[in-house]
Amino acid sequence: MTWVFVLDHASVLIFALSGALVASRAQLDLIGFMFVAALTAVGGGTVRDLFLDRNPIFWIAEPSNIAVASLAAITVFFTAHRFESRLKVIVWLDALALAIAVSAGVAAAHALGQTATITVIMGVITGCLGGLMRDVVCNEVPLVLKQGELYITAALAGALAATLALNLTDVVWGPLAACTALTFALRAGSIAYGWHIPVYKPRPPRS
Amino acid sequence: MTWVFVLDHASVLIFALSGALVASRAQLDLIGFMFVAALTAVGGGTVRDLFLDRNPIFWIAEPSNIAVASLAAITVFFTAHRFESRLKVIVWLDALALAIAVSAGVAAAHALGQTATITVIMGVITGCLGGLMRDVVCNEVPLVLKQGELYITAALAGALAATLALNLTDVVWGPLAACTALTFALRAGSIAYGWHIPVYKPRPPRS
Amino acid sequence: MTWVFVLDHASVLIFALSGALVASRAQLDLIGFMFVAALTAVGGGTVRDLFLDRNPIFWIAEPSNIAVASLAAITVFFTAHRFESRLKVIVWLDALALAIAVSAGVAAAHALGQTATITVIMGVITGCLGGLMRDVVCNEVPLVLKQGELYITAALAGALAATLALNLTDVVWGPLAACTALTFALRAGSIAYGWHIPVYKPRPPRS
Repeated sequence: MTWVFVLDHASVLIFALSGALVASRAQLDLIGFMFVAALTAVGGGTVRDLFLDRNPIFWIAEPSNIAVASLAAITVFFTAHRFESRLKVIVWLDALALAIAVSAGVAAAHALGQTATITVIMGVITGCLGGLMRDVVCNEVPLVLKQGELYITAALAGALAATLALNLTDVVWGPLAACTALTFALRAGSIAYGWHIPVYKPRPPRS
Repeated sequence: MTWVFVLDHASVLIFALSGALVASRAQLDLIGFMFVAALTAVGGGTVRDLFLDRNPIFWIAEPSNIAVASLAAITVFFTAHRFESRLKVIVWLDALALAIAVSAGVAAAHALGQTATITVIMGVITGCLGGLMRDVVCNEVPLVLKQGELYITAALAGALAATLALNLTDVVWGPLAACTALTFALRAGSIAYGWHIPVYKPRPPRS
Repeated sequence: MTWVFVLDHASVLIFALSGALVASRAQLDLIGFMFVAALTAVGGGTVRDLFLDRNPIFWIAEPSNIAVASLAAITVFFTAHRFESRLKVIVWLDALALAIAVSAGVAAAHALGQTATITVIMGVITGCLGGLMRDVVCNEVPLVLKQGELYITAALAGALAATLALNLTDVVWGPLAACTALTFALRAGSIAYGWHIPVYKPRPPRS
């Protein structure tokens, strides 16, 4: 059992919960919940595996990922009405899943001996694309590109830190844990305290 | 000539007709019709082939699929004004194409010796993704996720039945025919009679 | 250094500029600029490489493409406010990038010995999909499918001309230059003078 295996399953579980909650906002049926949950859960890792020509892709190699996503969808279908603010829960689950998925992407690329540049990019892709697909398909404003929030930036910072650390040490779990912690901390700070980096502003017209 | 070949061509033809009709609603030109028709027609099977690492993908191996989609687009361009309700025709063509494409996906995965789980999933993906791409690109409400209708559920039921039957018999055409019939019957019942499974409903606030 | 290498980098640069300008309209931050720029810049070529099973895909083989896209995004972030009409600049950059990317797609497929049909299709895909992804993700009306403009048609004409010429001569740069010139000329004529081919029009109801 490798780190990629563990991290993929963990991010699949949490992304699936977030996807199922988005499905609840669209008032889909149980199979619709499973579809959106699975798309969100495996979307980023699937693109990563296609780009890296990992073969078979992770959820064909380990269909337990699909079982995890389906169970998450079923659980949410029967319990989502208990949450007062589903949107808030979605945003926080998405933040946690993002942080874990970035680590999974870095770990997978590192295990294949990819260069630092590609390792960082695979971390960002694995983290960001599942949520982006969920939001495009369900016609929500993509969290990934929400103005004035750290999202891709958080993923990029975590992936950079992990890749740097992996080149300095032979231990794998340390850099991956640091990646997850840093990505989550930046994203959480953005959600809770409005942390952000400057956004583009067109100059006001001269008076 | 294999079942996958026949089923791919049949679903390409019918999905292309539905895609071209969506293009007519957007009042595109002839080349726009061909683009949307081809995207709809080969989208699901292309994703299936990328996921299964079938190489070359089906329409590179058999470019006749592209010819079929193009001819369908041209035909619709010059005849669509004859239909009174294009939306109704789109929905019914889409239902038929879905039913055939699910069979094509199951047949392709089965021929590669995939497990039952992956075979079912490939049926659903092949059936559902072409129409989803068509609707996302053309900015229509995705039929796939329309609330209170059987769509993915119909595809899943058909794919499950076919996969089960393929494991019980050596005949291939029987399970595939049953898959197409079951998927179409469920989808048609949903369109015509409103068949559906329960959708998620948030509890009403306590009074 | 091959033609594919040069053309990929050139289209990456110009598509990245257009993507970053779209990011400026959404008022994203610097990392958001880089994400949208990279998506636009490498989207079409990535799909081409996945379909053709080119391995590794071009920006993993040549990460300098990512550097080019990132630098373009940074430049635009600090200078976009100087342009009076960003939308107009986006449309013209997109036209130039389209013309170059079609050539890159044709060159890549030709170098792999693909048939004429597939070579033409790869030209169109490489040219059109990056801009389509940019517009879908950023929720803009896709330029690709804008009614009454030559876009896919321009790409198709350029790709057809180049593929035909490549089958008549052993020189590669000539057909590719002609492809870029023809695609750009048609697209530019459409933008500047409203050139178009007939769009679908439903018959008016009989009175």
